Formats: sequence, C-alpha cells, structure tokens
Amino acid sequence: MAETTGTRLDQQIAFLNEADKLKNTLRATELCDNSRYENSAEHSWHLTLYALVLADQAGPAVDINLVIRMLILHDLVEIDAGDNPIFGTHDISEMEAKEQEAADRIFGLLPIDLRDDLRVIWEEFEAAETPSAQFAKSLDRFQPPMQNLQSGGGSWIDFDVTEAQIHEKVGSKIAIGAPHLWTYAKGRIASFFADRT
Amino acid sequence: MAETTGTRLDQQIAFLNEADKLKNTLRATELCDNSRYENSAEHSWHLTLYALVLADQAGPAVDINLVIRMLILHDLVEIDAGDNPIFGTHDISEMEAKEQEAADRIFGLLPIDLRDDLRVIWEEFEAAETPSAQFAKSLDRFQPPMQNLQSGGGSWIDFDVTEAQIHEKVGSKIAIGAPHLWTYAKGRIASFFADRT
Repeated sequence: MAETTGTRLDQQIAFLNEADKLKNTLRATELCDNSRYENSAEHSWHLTLYALVLADQAGPAVDINLVIRMLILHDLVEIDAGDNPIFGTHDISEMEAKEQEAADRIFGLLPIDLRDDLRVIWEEFEAAETPSAQFAKSLDRFQPPMQNLQSGGGSWIDFDVTEAQIHEKVGSKIAIGAPHLWTYAKGRIASFFADRT
Repeated sequence: MAETTGTRLDQQIAFLNEADKLKNTLRATELCDNSRYENSAEHSWHLTLYALVLADQAGPAVDINLVIRMLILHDLVEIDAGDNPIFGTHDISEMEAKEQEAADRIFGLLPIDLRDDLRVIWEEFEAAETPSAQFAKSLDRFQPPMQNLQSGGGSWIDFDVTEAQIHEKVGSKIAIGAPHLWTYAKGRIASFFADRT
C-alpha cells in the first residue's frame, strides 16, 4: 500500500477534486424524462452500466474491464474543452488540439505513473483502433439515441436532424463495434421518424 | 454475440432506461464548487474514478475491476428507496427492506442471467465482508468528506455535525478498507474544524 503523507496522495486528491467539474459540463442529450440536459459525469456513469449490461454485444477480442476504464475516463477532457455535440458544427482538428491540451493539464495533475497509465487508456479510446476502443466508442454513440427515443427526440429536434444524418454520423460508428446494436437502434429510429410525419 | 431482436435486448434497454432515473436522485453532498447537490449517478461515476486513481490504497486481496463494478451498481436501488444521508435519521432495517424491494424490481427488469450476475455483485457490496466490498465501501465513505472539504463544509454544516460524529459514522468505516485514506482525511477534517472555532 502507498504511504498516506507527502505529495503522492495530495496529487491524487487534487485530480479527483478537479474531476468533480465534469458534473458541470452539459451535453446536448436530455434525460429520458425530458427534465434537463445530461451532464458528462452522469453520462459517463450511464455508459459504464451500458458496458456491464451489453457486454454480450462485444466481440471476443473485447476486454470489458478495459472498456469500462475507457468510459470512466473518456470525457474528462471536456472539463477544459467542453462537449462537442455530434450534430453541431465544430472544426475537428481544432477540437482535437484542445482535447490534447486538456489531457496534458488534467492527467498532468496526477503522479507520473498514474498520469501515464490513464493517458494510455484515454489515447487508446480516442484512436478507436482496437476492438475494446471500438466497442467503447459504439456504446458512446448508442446511448444518446436511446435517450432521445425516450425523451421525445432531444438533440434530434434541437439540431433539426434527419434520419439520414443519424445513419451517417451515428449509425456508421455504432456499427463498427456493435453491429447488432445499430440494427436494433435503426429500426426504432425509423419508427420514431415515421410517427412524426 | 447475442441476437439483436426479441425480448433479451428489449429487457437490457428497459433496464438501462430505468437506470437513467438515478440522475434525479439527490444526495446530501454538494459539488466541490458549492453550486448544487450531487446526484447519485454522477457520484457513482466519481467513485469509479476514485477506485482507478486510488487503487494503490487497496490491500492485495482486492480486485479493482470488481470494486469498479460494485461502485457502478451500488446506488441503483436509490431510484426507488432514495438516498439516506449518513448523518440523517432513518430506521436501518426499514431502509434495508426498502432497498431489497428496490433491487428485486430494478434488477428484475433484466434477463435472468444478468439479473442474477449483477445482483450478486450488489449483494457482495452491501454485505461488506470481502476485501473488495470493504474497499468499495471505504471509497463511498471517503468521497463525501473530500467534497465537503472543498465546498466549505457541505453536509457537515447542513446536519450540524461534530468532528466526533464524523469519526464515528464515517472514519470507522473508511478505516476498515482503506486505513491510510482515513489517516489522510482525519488530519484535514481536524484542520477544517480548527479553522471554524
């Protein structure tokens, strides 16, 4: 066990206190009951529960414990960089630069070994090249439509989104890591839009 | 991989939609910036981050991946039973009965295999007898004082709590699974109360 005094534990607590700010970062998605916008901290919790409950949708090369760690960490950079709604307009390379700068600062609050360990997990998620990262990314794209279907449209209404745009920006990503979940979502999204016309 | 159609995935999604309600369950603890009360969903996320960052405070028999799963699930019953502030007055056996009933209903939304798997994790946490459960419980008691120290006292002020009561109701529990964290918190709590007199 680590020592209790000195700077190591102080650094760990400073990081955890800083992380509290993610509870104030608002997303474009609403809660299922339509009462308010979701924040990135509770969204991250919800995604870890998605990973636990939908683990049977992951391919055999996916490490669910790693997926959960990715999802715990994935939005921390939004403390500095904010949330970029998927249907909003933003410069992707500018956003990525901001997020890298945020990762430097926020993970940099930690003792060096922890800083590096957690940064590696976050970078793997961001790169979306490994099966675990692809599954984690798919869950991150799958949860907002599930919320929108409950809340009466949520960000689809706010951003005046078409069904085709959802296929392009969301479906294509869900399908990479969790193809059955996209099949499931696609049918329900089709019914939602059919009911509105 | 599981099938996409039929009732299994519908049940999984119904559970995940129900879990969204935890974002509306308010706790007695405030955010570090004192802006509002914390909800149990974002609290659960914060605790999973505590587990990742403070894993070096766990004894050798602790399984951190299991701790994280416990922390993801630990407050779900509050959707029905509400949060019981540690310094509030409530009948413990009545509260436990309510939480068992809530667990029956909420985990009962899942397919049977998942219902049983997740219930077992929650029951292990509740029983607080294994090293992993004791560490998870210690983190659950350690985070609120860390928030209170940042927010200017938070629930200690609201409930007019003495330093001795914190030692009795919080410290004794933190010390079981994470003794060094209690040593760390105790010193900072002493300084906080000394500054107030």
